[in-house]
Amino acid sequence: MKRILVTGATGYIGRHVLSPLARYGYEIHATSTRAGPGLPPEVIVHRVDLFDAAGVDGLLAAVRPSRLLHLAWNVTPPDYWSSAENLSWVQSSLGLALAFQRAGGERIVVAGSCAEYDWTRGVCKENQTECAPVSLYGTCKDALRRMLLGFAARTGLSAAWGRVFHSFGPGEHRSRLVPSLASALLAGRPAVCRNGEQIRDFLDVRDVGGAFAALVAGEVTGAINLASGEGVPLGRVARLLGELAGRHDLVEVCDAADAAAGPPVLIADTGRLAREVGWKPAHTLEAGLADALEYWRR
Amino acid sequence: MKRILVTGATGYIGRHVLSPLARYGYEIHATSTRAGPGLPPEVIVHRVDLFDAAGVDGLLAAVRPSRLLHLAWNVTPPDYWSSAENLSWVQSSLGLALAFQRAGGERIVVAGSCAEYDWTRGVCKENQTECAPVSLYGTCKDALRRMLLGFAARTGLSAAWGRVFHSFGPGEHRSRLVPSLASALLAGRPAVCRNGEQIRDFLDVRDVGGAFAALVAGEVTGAINLASGEGVPLGRVARLLGELAGRHDLVEVCDAADAAAGPPVLIADTGRLAREVGWKPAHTLEAGLADALEYWRR
Repeated sequence: MKRILVTGATGYIGRHVLSPLARYGYEIHATSTRAGPGLPPEVIVHRVDLFDAAGVDGLLAAVRPSRLLHLAWNVTPPDYWSSAENLSWVQSSLGLALAFQRAGGERIVVAGSCAEYDWTRGVCKENQTECAPVSLYGTCKDALRRMLLGFAARTGLSAAWGRVFHSFGPGEHRSRLVPSLASALLAGRPAVCRNGEQIRDFLDVRDVGGAFAALVAGEVTGAINLASGEGVPLGRVARLLGELAGRHDLVEVCDAADAAAGPPVLIADTGRLAREVGWKPAHTLEAGLADALEYWRR
Repeated sequence: MKRILVTGATGYIGRHVLSPLARYGYEIHATSTRAGPGLPPEVIVHRVDLFDAAGVDGLLAAVRPSRLLHLAWNVTPPDYWSSAENLSWVQSSLGLALAFQRAGGERIVVAGSCAEYDWTRGVCKENQTECAPVSLYGTCKDALRRMLLGFAARTGLSAAWGRVFHSFGPGEHRSRLVPSLASALLAGRPAVCRNGEQIRDFLDVRDVGGAFAALVAGEVTGAINLASGEGVPLGRVARLLGELAGRHDLVEVCDAADAAAGPPVLIADTGRLAREVGWKPAHTLEAGLADALEYWRR
C-alpha cells in the first residue's frame, strides 16, 4: 500500500487534505504535537515535535513513507509575517526533507505561498514571475523552496512546491477577512471591508486541500500555484456574504487604498495546475462562502 | 572590551582572520570541534559542535559576544558543491544567528561566495548582478543570505555578507589549483593548467582574512565582495608559479574550454569594499604566489 506522511494534518489546510488522500488510496500517517480536532480514525497519528531532530529522524526511519506532504508552519496572523520563528521552521523543514530522503522517500510536496512572488506583477506565473518577497515569511518560504528543489535535483527526489494564495473556509483564523465579516453579519454588527477594490485570488480551503492531495499523488515537479485563477475584489466577497446572510444592509465597503495591506491585484496563473496536475476546484466562490457562513453560524 | 565570536577559526580562511581581529582590539572567542593548527594563545577556544543546537545556545548565552563572524562550513572539494550537508550547514547557521540575536548580539558577518552570482555576467556587483546559483552550495549560501538579511532587517541586527571569490595561500586544500601546480613544480613534474584562458579574481587568503576582519569591525551592511577586483587568466597564475619556482619549462597551459569548470570570466566589482569598508589588499598576486610556493616547499 502507498504510504504518505502528512505534517500539519490538524491545521487549517491539513484537515482538508486527509479525505482526498484516502480516496487516492494512501495509508496516511500524520505528525501531531497537540490534540487537534479529531483526525479520522484511518489516519495513523504520531506524536512528534518537528523541532526535535532526533524524533523526526526516528519517525521517518520507522514509517519509511514513500511520499511526504509538509504543511506544518506557524501561520498565526499577524505575527507570522515577521516572526523569527520562520527561521526555525526553515531549520525544521530542512531536517525533515533530509530525514525523508535518507529513509528512502521518493516524492515530497511542501506548502509555499503567494508571498514569495514580486507583488507588483499582478498575475503570478510559476517559473516566470520573479520571486521578490517583502515579508520574512515570504523570504523564508522562498529560500526553503530554492534549497529543496536544488537538493531534489541532486538526489533524484521528486519535489513539488504548492503555492497557496488566498483561502477561506472551515477552520480559518478568526482575525482573517471572511471569518471577521461573517461574525459581524451573524451578530448583526456592521461588516466593514476596508480595501474593497483590492483584487485577490480566493479558493475554498477544502479545494486547497484537494489540490495538495492531487499534487502529492501526481508527479508534477517544481512550483505550482494552487489557486482559483480568478480575481475577485474584496468588496465583492463582503457583498456576497451580506447577501448570503440576508444582511446586505450591514455591509460597508470602503477603499482605503492601504499600501500596507498589500498590492492592488494578486492573482494566480493556474495553467500548470489545470493542465499538468489536471485539477480544478470543486466549489464556486458563492457556494464556498455559503458553507463558510454556515460554519461560522454553528 | 569588545568581544567577538569566530566560527571556523581553525579553517583555511579563519586562521588568517585572528591576528587582524586582535589588532582591532577584540577579545576573541572561537568555536572548535577539532585540534587544529594551534590557535594563538590569546584566543579563547570553546569546544562546541555547531550542529548541537543546545550547545550553541549555551555558548552564546555564556559568552554574549557583541559581534559574530561565522566562517564555518564544509568546503572540502569537490563534494561540497553538491553535498546534502549544505542543507545542514544552513540549519546550523540559522540556529547560530537566532542564538546570537537572543543573547543580545549586535553585528553578524557571514561568509558568502561568488557561487551565489549568475556566472554568465562576468563582472559581479553586489545589489546589481542577479543571484542565480547553479550548485547546491551556491543555492544554500544564497538562501541563507536572503533569510539572514531579512531577519536582521526585522530585529535591528547589523548584518553583512562577505562574498569570497578565488583565494590561494597557506592552508589551501591540496587538490585546488595553486597547491597542485606548486606541488608539481616543486617535485619536478609537469604543471598542467587545463583552462588557461579562464579569468578569475584571485586574492591571497591572508587578505581574505584581513578583509573579513575589517568587515566585521566596521558597520557596512548587506552583501560585500571580498576580492581583488582584478581578473587574471589561470594560465598567467601557472606561468608566474613556474617562474617563481625557476621551472617555467614544466608549465603546460591548455585551453580545454571546459564548461563544467565554470564560466570564462568571473571577477568581483570591489567598489563597496574599497569605498565603504575602506579596505585594500596587502599582497600583490606575485608576492602572494611566492609566499604560497614557499609554504608548499616546507
